[in-house]
Parts: sequence; C-alpha cells; structure tokens
Amino acid sequence: MNNVGYVLTIKTMSLSKNKISYIQSLKQKKYRKEHNTFVAEGSKLVFDLLPHMKCQILVIAEGINDNIPSFEAEETIIATHAEIKKASHLATPPEVLAVFYQSQQDYSTIDLTHKLSLILDGIQDPGNLGTIIRIADWFGIENIFCSRDTADVYNTKTVQSTMGALSRVNIHYTNIIDLVAQYSNSPIYGTFLNGENIYTEPLTPMGFIVMGNEGKGIRPEIEKLITHRLYIPSFSTNNTTSESLNVAVATSVVCSEFRRRF
Amino acid sequence: MNNVGYVLTIKTMSLSKNKISYIQSLKQKKYRKEHNTFVAEGSKLVFDLLPHMKCQILVIAEGINDNIPSFEAEETIIATHAEIKKASHLATPPEVLAVFYQSQQDYSTIDLTHKLSLILDGIQDPGNLGTIIRIADWFGIENIFCSRDTADVYNTKTVQSTMGALSRVNIHYTNIIDLVAQYSNSPIYGTFLNGENIYTEPLTPMGFIVMGNEGKGIRPEIEKLITHRLYIPSFSTNNTTSESLNVAVATSVVCSEFRRRF
Repeated sequence: MNNVGYVLTIKTMSLSKNKISYIQSLKQKKYRKEHNTFVAEGSKLVFDLLPHMKCQILVIAEGINDNIPSFEAEETIIATHAEIKKASHLATPPEVLAVFYQSQQDYSTIDLTHKLSLILDGIQDPGNLGTIIRIADWFGIENIFCSRDTADVYNTKTVQSTMGALSRVNIHYTNIIDLVAQYSNSPIYGTFLNGENIYTEPLTPMGFIVMGNEGKGIRPEIEKLITHRLYIPSFSTNNTTSESLNVAVATSVVCSEFRRRF
Repeated sequence: MNNVGYVLTIKTMSLSKNKISYIQSLKQKKYRKEHNTFVAEGSKLVFDLLPHMKCQILVIAEGINDNIPSFEAEETIIATHAEIKKASHLATPPEVLAVFYQSQQDYSTIDLTHKLSLILDGIQDPGNLGTIIRIADWFGIENIFCSRDTADVYNTKTVQSTMGALSRVNIHYTNIIDLVAQYSNSPIYGTFLNGENIYTEPLTPMGFIVMGNEGKGIRPEIEKLITHRLYIPSFSTNNTTSESLNVAVATSVVCSEFRRRF
C-alpha cells in the first residue's frame, strides 16, 4: 500500500465528537494556551511541519492514505471528509489536518550579537505576521521577537500564511525594552517617514530591525531605543501617494536591502 | 454645522431597500460589470477616492456629517448604522460607503517606452492584487497590465486593500501577448528560480516586469516573451526554506531594486 521505506501506523479510523470539539476549540487563543497546541491544515503545510514539530494528532482523509510518509504523531486518525469538515478552521476543509505542540524557545541561550533579527512592535494582523515569518525565512533571519500585544503566531490565519516557515524561524514573545537593553551595543533600526534613505544609508550585517503596528507604527517607548532611523523612499510622481507601505511589504524591502549589502 | 468652505448637499435621508440590494449585488463581478460600478468602504478610502473618481452614491452614517468636505456625488444619502450594515460588504460596517463608477483607461494612447510597468499574469488572490497596486503606487509605477484571468480589481477585498492607490495607478485588463508584441524593443523581466541574481544583474529604468500566478508562476506562453530572467536570492541557511516568496512580497523586492538603481 505504501512506498518502500514508509510505514503508516493507523491508530484510529474515525474522528470522535470530542476530538472535533477539541480541534474547533483551538480557534481560540485561550484554549491553544491551555493545551499548548495549535492546528495546521493542508497536506503541504502539515508535511512541511511534521519533521520539525511534535505532532499530537494527525488527521488524514480516507482514500488519500497511499504514499504518505510515516511521521511521529501521538495519534494518527483516518477520517471521513465530513468529519474533517466539522473539525477544520478553514472555509475549504483540507485532506490533511494536524494538531501540533507549540514550540517553546528560550532565547536567553542564543547570542544575537552577530545575527540580524526582527522585532515586531504590536503587529495586529495575523496574515501580516504570517507573511513576515515567511519573509524572515527567505532572508535567513532566524529570530523574530514580538511584543506581547503582537498577534498570536498560532492563530489559524498566521499558521496558514507562514507556508511552513513556522518550523524554521524562532518566534519569541517578550518584553522588547528588556531585550534591547541586553544588546546595548547593537544597532537598532526602525523605519520612519523622516528617516534616512535606506538605499544610501550605511547598514550593518547584524542588529535588530523594528517593524511597528499597522496603524500606529512604532510606539514612543520603543522609538527611543532606535539608533538608526531609516526610510523607504517613495518614487511616486503623485503628491498624494499611499501614506505607507503595508508592514509586511515594508519588512520585505528592508530585509532585502540589508541582505543585498552583505 | 460644517467648516467654512465646505458645503454638504444632502439629497436623501435614508437608504432604501432597493439601494441596499443594489449595493449588495455589487459583491458579484457580473453586476459590477453590468452597472460599471464598484463599492468602496471606510471614510479614509472613500475620501481618498472621491476627488479622483466619479461617485454614484455616497452613503454617510447619521451623526457623523459634521466637517465632511463636499464632493461631487450623484446622490448623497445620510443613513442609519443599521441600513449601512445591511448594505456593507464588510464584517465591520463602516461609517462611510460609496458606489463609484469604474474608470476606463485606454492605454493605446500612452507611450510606455520610457516607463517601468507591471504585468500580472493570472494573479488570483484579490488581496495580493490590492497590495501590488499599493506597491506600484509607492514605487511610481503608473500602469499595471493584467491578463484577463487576473482577479477583478473592483472586488471588495482588492478595493479595500489598495488603500486609495486605486485612483493613482492605471489598471488595464488586456491580452498580455499582444501588449508585449507592441513593445518588441522593451526589456521584459520576470522572476524565476533559475534566473540571474536581481541584486547584481544589470537593470533598465524602463520596460515591463512580469509577476506570475501564486501557484503556477508565469505561464509558458508568457515566459517565452521574457528577455531578462531574474531571481531574488534566498539567504536562508536552511536547505528546506520557503519555496517562494508571496507574489506581492516578491513584487515589492523587485520594484524596490529597480527604483534603487535609478
């Protein structure tokens, strides 16, 4: 039934009402926090995460279990499409859904001095957060530090929009002011409308890049800590151009420019 | 009641059932096409568009009509919040909503030879399309050419995500192959996994940049027309990094690099 080298261990043949309720409850942050788990949906995403993250429940639609590599999951369930539809957080239910354990990373043991890291100050939109994680993955940024009021990385929309980058980028929720205080010799970059042109300003291969809230930008307490104020120039011939770039788009332009230089 | 210099002409004091149905119907492309109109919601977006686009119906919530500048709208309606809620396409109904006429632009009269333009080959996600329009606005790209199977620019999600850039960037739906044939001397850029490093490759201040479909990329018939194959390098130390950047993010990196050079 399966390719050589793959062993699929099936433990359960249907998704119980209790499990459906449990998976549904993980739409809410309080239950994700209580159980220390989150949901990922879609075969590509789930199979991208499986080698890297501890899986509590792996749910696979009946009839698609050929050629599925075996992974460590505490429980593997073959379910009907109707059952998956009831459990799914998405408008279009997937053929594969999984509950993973949240990964706890202790950044106090990581030396960030020679790395380039991102700081997110109050990013609210879960989709923006997911896109930023994907950008960090692409540009080789290993650590993202989020203020405690930043959107939850384990929100369904964020998980889905990371496209698997979630397993490769470390996300830390912390007090940003305390973090920056620990690295008082590191440059702290931020983008502002009255900053210096990012294309011509000297940049360093290490330090922190702060990206602010979608509406309010970087909050004053954090702005004080910025050592290098940058600006992405607008090339519009129009006076009344977009006031700002979307925060994920701005993150990509900034990360691209830092990586281009070094 | 209003500031000096502003005159608010109120024609109607309630939003009729017929108008609510009409505004609701504009969720669907076929009705937008039939009436040649579209809906924009939220005071910031509506007031950004009003000076630039012909407005059929301007709906303002009762009680917020102080200090609103007067604009040419065929009909201005002060409505209750309950009426606006029924008409709105959004989960959180706004205080200002408007129906605008779609603007028809004839690009045959524009000489694109010395301009940098974007070509979108089958972009499917309305949010991505909106974000790309906002990016084009920021980077001074005046014209975007969309293949006929690209998402509709007048889709609610696209309109909302342009943040007003819709009035400053010309969007043309056309046969891309015919368009490119007219500019046979212009460089046609596209991004591919096996392209040349965009940071080091020579670029020109004019030409066309093709961005492909989210899943399938640039289709083979269009790929044949590309004269310069580019690549955005990944800086991940991980072998199994994200396969690609989101198309709007990739567009921002490409546009940023073109504009940085010149």
